[in-house]
Amino acid sequence: MSKISPLSGFPEFLPSDRIVELQFLDTIRETFELHGFASIETRAVEPVERLSNQGEDADKEIYGVRRLAAGADEDAALGLHFDLTVPFARYVLEHSGKLTFPFRRYQIQKVWRGERPQEGRYREFTQADIDIIDSGELPFHYEVELPLVIADAFRKLPIPPFRIQVNTRQIPEGFYRGLGIEDITGALRIVDKLDKIGPDKVTDLLTAAGLSAETAKQVLRLAEISSTDASFADQVRALGVQHEILDEGLERLSQIMTAANEHAPGLLVADLKVARGLDYYTGTVYETQLIGDEGYGSICSGGRYDSLASDGKTTYPGVGISIGVSRLVHRLISKGLLKASRSTPTAVVIALNSEDDRAEAMRTAIQLRSRGIPVEVAPAAAKFGKQIRFADRRGIPFVWFSTENGPEVKDIRSGEQVPADAATWAPPVEDLRPSIETHSIESHRENS
Amino acid sequence: MSKISPLSGFPEFLPSDRIVELQFLDTIRETFELHGFASIETRAVEPVERLSNQGEDADKEIYGVRRLAAGADEDAALGLHFDLTVPFARYVLEHSGKLTFPFRRYQIQKVWRGERPQEGRYREFTQADIDIIDSGELPFHYEVELPLVIADAFRKLPIPPFRIQVNTRQIPEGFYRGLGIEDITGALRIVDKLDKIGPDKVTDLLTAAGLSAETAKQVLRLAEISSTDASFADQVRALGVQHEILDEGLERLSQIMTAANEHAPGLLVADLKVARGLDYYTGTVYETQLIGDEGYGSICSGGRYDSLASDGKTTYPGVGISIGVSRLVHRLISKGLLKASRSTPTAVVIALNSEDDRAEAMRTAIQLRSRGIPVEVAPAAAKFGKQIRFADRRGIPFVWFSTENGPEVKDIRSGEQVPADAATWAPPVEDLRPSIETHSIESHRENS
Repeated sequence: MSKISPLSGFPEFLPSDRIVELQFLDTIRETFELHGFASIETRAVEPVERLSNQGEDADKEIYGVRRLAAGADEDAALGLHFDLTVPFARYVLEHSGKLTFPFRRYQIQKVWRGERPQEGRYREFTQADIDIIDSGELPFHYEVELPLVIADAFRKLPIPPFRIQVNTRQIPEGFYRGLGIEDITGALRIVDKLDKIGPDKVTDLLTAAGLSAETAKQVLRLAEISSTDASFADQVRALGVQHEILDEGLERLSQIMTAANEHAPGLLVADLKVARGLDYYTGTVYETQLIGDEGYGSICSGGRYDSLASDGKTTYPGVGISIGVSRLVHRLISKGLLKASRSTPTAVVIALNSEDDRAEAMRTAIQLRSRGIPVEVAPAAAKFGKQIRFADRRGIPFVWFSTENGPEVKDIRSGEQVPADAATWAPPVEDLRPSIETHSIESHRENS
Repeated sequence: MSKISPLSGFPEFLPSDRIVELQFLDTIRETFELHGFASIETRAVEPVERLSNQGEDADKEIYGVRRLAAGADEDAALGLHFDLTVPFARYVLEHSGKLTFPFRRYQIQKVWRGERPQEGRYREFTQADIDIIDSGELPFHYEVELPLVIADAFRKLPIPPFRIQVNTRQIPEGFYRGLGIEDITGALRIVDKLDKIGPDKVTDLLTAAGLSAETAKQVLRLAEISSTDASFADQVRALGVQHEILDEGLERLSQIMTAANEHAPGLLVADLKVARGLDYYTGTVYETQLIGDEGYGSICSGGRYDSLASDGKTTYPGVGISIGVSRLVHRLISKGLLKASRSTPTAVVIALNSEDDRAEAMRTAIQLRSRGIPVEVAPAAAKFGKQIRFADRRGIPFVWFSTENGPEVKDIRSGEQVPADAATWAPPVEDLRPSIETHSIESHRENS
């Protein structure tokens, strides 16, 4: 047997950090359900030919899966899914007769990519996706709604300030067409490098691609526009470029920003330099960054797609966003911003005077559990100091004792010990479940 | 692109059946947490050499995993885990310095086995495991506690009557030793076939293995003993076989049955024919069957193991049980015993008089959501009949209207429509979330 060592790119949480991740997942799920999204899970594997060249990041590396005992002629070639969009598209086509459209679904699952591991980039990680998909046509208003769901989830999470950047393909496409640029996708890919290489090099690349100096300058001016309301549209119009696709894009992004200003003020930004994915998506695109940690990249991205799923007869347009849960939680934990208050759900340990008391302790535990209080009985009738340390090492706040005066419960943080009745006693509500301590997030906010 | 077709052995739920599965998973998790088990997740892959010949079912087929783009010299050979015990043992060894023992963990994840698919046997399925593992020694009382946790979870689930069968390795081992049988494991493996091949053929196999007719008869007599209390011990003693290991086994199983009789009366059965896994486990073993559906096999199994995890210096004994969540839920759904009341979390659809009302409808939705009510706005300002059908096809009970007299809400099951205020109105608590309809379980009970 080989020595045990971690596998690079396959991170695992210790129990207390897993509690943080679980609370993130619970909040995200709860928010998705409040917005009427239904859960599905898809199998982990898809035929390799369905995975290849599909999805937003068509170049990610696929893990192949094969029974070790398989004969050479057995089994279609299978691969682990690298996102939740490609399997969702297949699920919709496979089950279309049994689904009702428009179909709002959420999906929280692991995905796998054979990339070179680095911070925030894993070979196995959890994504939380919402998509709304329709049969034939998908109304634009879902592109307005979707980032508001994400804003609703994120503002319930103990995370630093964030910014959901929004752009829509029609704006650069219409603007570029108005400028006479022919290779829209090529220009978008160059603009996508703006943050990495700066405006001078982007200008060089654009002119090298055949644009005039003035056209390149206009492309850059468009990319520099942003606003947290609908005022970006006036800035675009001031550049003097005319095209009906541009008008349509400005109208749509304005609708999104007007709704955002009412329901999620300050959380969404119309940012016209967002180009990533615009060559893949057909309408609005979304990216999300932690303010002050922009270099880490997007923690939540998505957009509108018109034809990811099609069975030849019917096309299913959709709009979706994916939260990079692992990217987000690992980052906040590794920066020391989040910590669980304890490493177990247990709120109370029932101490034992002797092993003979175990049956009675189990009865007490059952009484407390019946009222929703997580309890365990001490592992052994050791000295009380040791039983208290058992609780303390796990961050469990309360220890229950049988004393001559009847049952008593000690808050081991304060040392206070009071009489208690298993039929009525409950811990303060903030101690019932582990909580997330976020003391550093405010200072992170101040620094940013 | 290949035609889309299901992959045999990789079942997927439609949204309404996924709601049933989610409620099972929520109840199981909630119960595990009330009993003080902490969640962990392990990566999906382990080195193949760690998976091979490990675990209770050492013959299951492993799925190998490999980057499609990997060079011949890259990557240790990896495989998908086929259970949650082997990865948990590895996790304990890898993180032992950062864990506190005894360590109570639960783990709810997918596992993969390359078996020939059939009903109840899948290539990808979900298990929900609890284990208590200690460093060095593990007290016996955890073997008493663990099946009570399962009984607590199962009696909260909408499932038919079930029976947790318990045996302990010391009983047949001590009994067989008292009879002078040398190959204990061999005899256990023959007795394991009792339900399949019947007592006569078991007798044949035992005598073929060198046992005398009288010894074989005694082995069968032991296997026929069962009781829902501690009375099995008297039946065993009446057989007249003496051995100190037998005495120890009877004492331990009696303790389990005494506790079961108090805390889970009728749900546990001391069943001395349970032999599966006794060649692998070192103490108590557990199996669980749905009464009337015994042929389907165990839906929840486990036992005590002494040395699954060892790093050469320290051994970590444990006791664990695994609920076959997919096995259980698919069975009950396919038998028509369970059905979700709707296919979406949405409790209320906000109808639209015209598309201009969408902004106001979004405000109503936000008000309702802020009080925990799952809401969505109608996809389009279609005729009211169509908007009501949108809700009805999903099983959504309420539709919200803006009328001349102010907002009103209609229960589309009864047709009753009443004035409603988004700041105060709530659906009846049983309509807030989808529920599981179980009308057939009682009749299933009567038939069994």
